[in-house]
Amino acid sequence: MKEEMPARPNSSDLSEYFELLRFETVGAEPMRLRDCVQCATWLKKWLEKTGAEARLVLPPRGSDFASVGCPPVVFAERKGDPGAPTVLVYGHYDVQPPDPLDAWNSPPFEPVEKDGRVYGRGSQDDKGQLFSFLCGLRRFLQNAKGPVPTLKFVYEGQEESGSGALTRLLTERASDDPEAPGFREGLAADVLCVCDTGAAADLRPAIVAGLRGVTHFTLRLEGANRDLHSGSFGGVAPNAAQAMAELLASLHNPDGSIAVRGFMDGVAEPSAEELAAARDSALSDEACEREIGCPPTGGERALPPVVRNSFRPTIEVNGVHSGYGGPGSKTVIPCAALAKLSMRLVPNQNPKDAMAAVERHLKLHSPPGMKLFVEDVTGEAPALKLPLSSPVFRLAAAVLEEIDSRGAVFQWDGASIPVVSLLARVSGAAPLLVGFGQPSDCIHSPNESFSLRQFALGSAWAEKILGAL
Amino acid sequence: MKEEMPARPNSSDLSEYFELLRFETVGAEPMRLRDCVQCATWLKKWLEKTGAEARLVLPPRGSDFASVGCPPVVFAERKGDPGAPTVLVYGHYDVQPPDPLDAWNSPPFEPVEKDGRVYGRGSQDDKGQLFSFLCGLRRFLQNAKGPVPTLKFVYEGQEESGSGALTRLLTERASDDPEAPGFREGLAADVLCVCDTGAAADLRPAIVAGLRGVTHFTLRLEGANRDLHSGSFGGVAPNAAQAMAELLASLHNPDGSIAVRGFMDGVAEPSAEELAAARDSALSDEACEREIGCPPTGGERALPPVVRNSFRPTIEVNGVHSGYGGPGSKTVIPCAALAKLSMRLVPNQNPKDAMAAVERHLKLHSPPGMKLFVEDVTGEAPALKLPLSSPVFRLAAAVLEEIDSRGAVFQWDGASIPVVSLLARVSGAAPLLVGFGQPSDCIHSPNESFSLRQFALGSAWAEKILGAL
Repeated sequence: MKEEMPARPNSSDLSEYFELLRFETVGAEPMRLRDCVQCATWLKKWLEKTGAEARLVLPPRGSDFASVGCPPVVFAERKGDPGAPTVLVYGHYDVQPPDPLDAWNSPPFEPVEKDGRVYGRGSQDDKGQLFSFLCGLRRFLQNAKGPVPTLKFVYEGQEESGSGALTRLLTERASDDPEAPGFREGLAADVLCVCDTGAAADLRPAIVAGLRGVTHFTLRLEGANRDLHSGSFGGVAPNAAQAMAELLASLHNPDGSIAVRGFMDGVAEPSAEELAAARDSALSDEACEREIGCPPTGGERALPPVVRNSFRPTIEVNGVHSGYGGPGSKTVIPCAALAKLSMRLVPNQNPKDAMAAVERHLKLHSPPGMKLFVEDVTGEAPALKLPLSSPVFRLAAAVLEEIDSRGAVFQWDGASIPVVSLLARVSGAAPLLVGFGQPSDCIHSPNESFSLRQFALGSAWAEKILGAL
Repeated sequence: MKEEMPARPNSSDLSEYFELLRFETVGAEPMRLRDCVQCATWLKKWLEKTGAEARLVLPPRGSDFASVGCPPVVFAERKGDPGAPTVLVYGHYDVQPPDPLDAWNSPPFEPVEKDGRVYGRGSQDDKGQLFSFLCGLRRFLQNAKGPVPTLKFVYEGQEESGSGALTRLLTERASDDPEAPGFREGLAADVLCVCDTGAAADLRPAIVAGLRGVTHFTLRLEGANRDLHSGSFGGVAPNAAQAMAELLASLHNPDGSIAVRGFMDGVAEPSAEELAAARDSALSDEACEREIGCPPTGGERALPPVVRNSFRPTIEVNGVHSGYGGPGSKTVIPCAALAKLSMRLVPNQNPKDAMAAVERHLKLHSPPGMKLFVEDVTGEAPALKLPLSSPVFRLAAAVLEEIDSRGAVFQWDGASIPVVSLLARVSGAAPLLVGFGQPSDCIHSPNESFSLRQFALGSAWAEKILGAL
């Protein structure tokens, strides 16, 4: 069946895909709210053309959170044939900030095709994946011969920054909100298709059997009332850059393991079956080094990389900034320091308990003479773990073998789609995470890209799984 | 005699002072070279009006260093009466970078007077101090009754960034250089007056008996070939921000002492007399906390702050930058990190040996999987230590008691004027470092200022010491 698959999307699909990529939907930046609303409106209209009823949804007004404005959730529903199952499709139209801008070979929001790949922020994560699925879905609807499932869609604009609005919509009582009547109730479904994950090495199809959870937070240290002369005050004033370095260094042991007391409490060991399946889909150390350009020395060096990435939590410094960074030298003692951190969580870790353990640790290691602030705690999403032998997984494996004769592997994606476990619980649907990302797509990095072959695979997957369910 | 001192500089002195402050002489920034040349030219003309012969001097061309261009050294000589001594005056017209710009209450290069203080970058360090001395010197020349010393002037434009050009002029053979004939030979003097230091608490006059040396350097760490997704690669890819934090943290022990093996070798203990004199001029812990806005917890906490600042070396992180620092979160594993560092050195520490010890330490602690670069090593100036009971010090003490009946104290300035020991050696002159800085001047910080009273003291000092020598 592999030969049937179109090698490249048709030009009308492609031109819509480029339109979608041009919206500068950095959901974390309030200045991009307008772009997000425009993009959400574009998606709403697109879905309406398939025969769905669609609307933009926001959490109830009146709270501080909603009043500052946030990217809306696109919700749509297309009624199917009686007796057919209900499929809920999830994706996100927001993207990571594009900086550092000067590392891009072409502007991040002006997509270009080059050598069979489309370059641009979001070209894969997640606009490329969500839209390749939609193109397959449209083809399925155009050609459907058997019964058509009821299709529901949830596309959010804050996946990269904690899924705040969608989380509130999923957790607050619908009766509070005249603008989103019955939002939670309306999500009921049998299968939850998520198009935001990766395939295995060489684009071999993969079904995600687990995702790590995630929590983000910001650390600030404040010392003196101003940056001070490093001669006049050296040996006297505390140095916020040095203190932040010591605080961040305290988070890990020399072997790369996490040094935060209580953080690892209850972390589940993978089963032998899970371990074997994860190893099956793993990149070799050498392939990994070729991909990232340096040896895979992150995390607990006593364990193999695939185990570290699939089954172990991390605490990662996403950025640290303090004092001078320009040309030449500036002999100051910085008075303040900022660090952005995030952690990836594994099954059996409660996000609130993990964050509490980190806060306790930070306060215990807080440098003398300085003030420590732990701020902007967002995400707090638990990990997701799915049973390998469910009926939905068996069906998906059969469909993926039609698309690629090598068949599918199971993967535990080190990444997180924070809202997926919540969405699964509220909708009652069985999660089915299949995507066609590859490390070389450079998501979250400059020059993000998605190949037309990956796009075509995403469409083929959507077309075939919707016919099979 | 205190009553004689003018409470404020005259308006013509002040207006020239403001002219001088308006030059944006950030010597470390190549883009400011033009401003530096204009400022040097302004000083040259000013000196010529006192009857001196003046010129702008640069190190020999042909080397990489000179060919990129650097701020010139202003050299001037005003012949005095036969038999009178020769006084060499040193200062610098370059200033620290003004950033963070948004922390300034008025633009850094548009000086304003407010409540008896002049605000602007360089208002104290060093344009204010050098020009208050020049105004007193002009008054001395106008009113001189006794023999007038021969006056020589050296004003450089790279004090804040390592004194590269002046160091080369002082260390390379003059015969190589048709443009600076006999530069070194021409510096011969009896006394070297340096106007770039501080007074003690409450503006009590101080004679500097020691200065720390300084070396600056830059650290870079490189890991993966791009910033990576912290989910997909978390636990696999090394994190440059975390690694830099660990590397910087390794420089100090938990008690604040320096952890670099070999760095403290041979560091001299102060004598009982020096210790007593330093304590005399020290701020109390409480006064220090009021000044800097936090407890004085920098450096080796087992020692009193004045000892740490006067007689102990430091390794200071002037800045660290890696990864994301914007709003919200960005879940990346940074692939690179930059840190700017400097160290202050004390007597008996050889700058090259100290730097070599630091480099050894950094390489030993270099994180696995990453590349470490130690770059832009500049300064390499040793500390300066002067005998308390020299004839020049006795004369200076008498003059300062005329200006302020409390008399002078001795101080070991924690800061550095890298080129002073070299200038003393080449000129054969006895260094005499008297200045009127105060911690509240905020040098190197936003809103740097200098009071008109401090300016007047600087002028009075120049007028009286030139008459007394």
